[in-house]
Amino acid sequence: MTGFTARDPDYEAKLRASFSRMRVMELIGARLARIEPGLVEIELPFREDLMQQHGFFHAGMSSTIADTAGGYASFTLNPGDTSVLTVEFKLNLLAPADGERLVAAGRVIKPGRTLTICDLEVTAYKDGQPKLVAKGLQTMMCVKDRPDILAAG
Amino acid sequence: MTGFTARDPDYEAKLRASFSRMRVMELIGARLARIEPGLVEIELPFREDLMQQHGFFHAGMSSTIADTAGGYASFTLNPGDTSVLTVEFKLNLLAPADGERLVAAGRVIKPGRTLTICDLEVTAYKDGQPKLVAKGLQTMMCVKDRPDILAAG
Amino acid sequence: MTGFTARDPDYEAKLRASFSRMRVMELIGARLARIEPGLVEIELPFREDLMQQHGFFHAGMSSTIADTAGGYASFTLNPGDTSVLTVEFKLNLLAPADGERLVAAGRVIKPGRTLTICDLEVTAYKDGQPKLVAKGLQTMMCVKDRPDILAAG
Amino acid sequence: MTGFTARDPDYEAKLRASFSRMRVMELIGARLARIEPGLVEIELPFREDLMQQHGFFHAGMSSTIADTAGGYASFTLNPGDTSVLTVEFKLNLLAPADGERLVAAGRVIKPGRTLTICDLEVTAYKDGQPKLVAKGLQTMMCVKDRPDILAAG
Repeated sequence: MTGFTARDPDYEAKLRASFSRMRVMELIGARLARIEPGLVEIELPFREDLMQQHGFFHAGMSSTIADTAGGYASFTLNPGDTSVLTVEFKLNLLAPADGERLVAAGRVIKPGRTLTICDLEVTAYKDGQPKLVAKGLQTMMCVKDRPDILAAG
Repeated sequence: MTGFTARDPDYEAKLRASFSRMRVMELIGARLARIEPGLVEIELPFREDLMQQHGFFHAGMSSTIADTAGGYASFTLNPGDTSVLTVEFKLNLLAPADGERLVAAGRVIKPGRTLTICDLEVTAYKDGQPKLVAKGLQTMMCVKDRPDILAAG
Repeated sequence: MTGFTARDPDYEAKLRASFSRMRVMELIGARLARIEPGLVEIELPFREDLMQQHGFFHAGMSSTIADTAGGYASFTLNPGDTSVLTVEFKLNLLAPADGERLVAAGRVIKPGRTLTICDLEVTAYKDGQPKLVAKGLQTMMCVKDRPDILAAG
Repeated sequence: MTGFTARDPDYEAKLRASFSRMRVMELIGARLARIEPGLVEIELPFREDLMQQHGFFHAGMSSTIADTAGGYASFTLNPGDTSVLTVEFKLNLLAPADGERLVAAGRVIKPGRTLTICDLEVTAYKDGQPKLVAKGLQTMMCVKDRPDILAAG
């Protein structure tokens, strides 16, 4: 448990609806793996066409799911009828993203009315064994009077 | 002109061969738009399935082409028989990535034997008008005795 | 010239008054070197007690003047009766900060009502010759109804 | 305990000797508070002349001790006769640094022969109560054949 409480009781349904409209998630085959107040995980199974030429996941794929996980983690704590957008993020790539799937976790470190700061982690599972392959920090902004997420946009 | 000189006379052919093996570039439809010593640009035309739900390019797509452009910009200045890998990058998203195409430019600020630092910029073209939509910094590492790029991996 | 226009005609006087109350600037001997809409430079002359053990300026000193320069660059474009505070910054250290003085320049890349993004550069002058020793990006927030700068706080 | 083992049995004595030569630490009144393999904490007691104009520690002071803590955390895991230097760091400022003292913790996330990645945290103590005021990530480089730390230089 994260210790945070959602302000919008419908946050999970809204989040899932938003995710389903994010076309690029379908293109790469990413799916929501965990949703809690202040914590979202997104999973990306191995596919040949997500790789760079050495058979590792392209860092852009780690970035795509990490940014989205943090964006939605922030979204879970915002009031209804607000959107989130990414102000900036930074990612350190710690090891080749090698394995049968990646899991990106976005965790809120510091929620705020306007800005929310998230910790980002990407873990690669190879033969079922987890390895931390990227670590990051992200600043999200809450935008009022827009009914949906702008996350990662 | 960038003021830099390539150390490997075959750098452009190697770069193009490397890019063509980066499967994820084909998936999203990205192409090399400019290659000079210390400067690489990658173009990404609009496609519905690269978007988030508001019809803007997903920030992960900006990240994917920006990281790759910087990686290859670093690659152009390295000796032959070396690879590059991304240590870290940071991206500020300045405006929605709205338009008919994105162009990511990676420019070497400080080349080095081990580490090379690049400036990253992503420009969106809408009705032909350019707008800076993301700005970043990236640290690349040169890895010896590997015959190909690990960029963005 | 920066191409920006100040919204508060008294911005320079307010900025100088704010800087003079920032006690740590006096401690380290930093001074305002240039003030224009969207651009502020801060100079830090060599002093033995600003160094690490090799006789180079400590990176914390580069950070201190770079963060402050960017904060005030943002301040020049804000309305009167607002403050600025640093949300985050990232700095790449490109070379040892060796010389008789450092100059940090903060330049607004993207002004905004709530958030302003700045480019940061630190140049070392050795025997009068400039060398870029650090490059960064910074996110500043404008806070209403506070009559003074919170920059770099 | 951090789970790391030092490779140089004299690491603590070398670290303390290096710190004592870092003149700027004396200027601002910072002191080593904790040294373990992969973890270093630096404490900075309140002093009027470390403040910005609102009575909070200047963000440059948080940066100075955070960068140094991470640099020395990396140093504890390196072989003897090597130095460390900061490649880059990023800091998110989460709350005003208000209190009677700051403690910066640098923790190694990923050690490496050439590069080491650290997590940075700055905690402010006010009336004895801790509050996380800054969170960061840092990339350190190990430099061979130099007998002392270049950290934060």
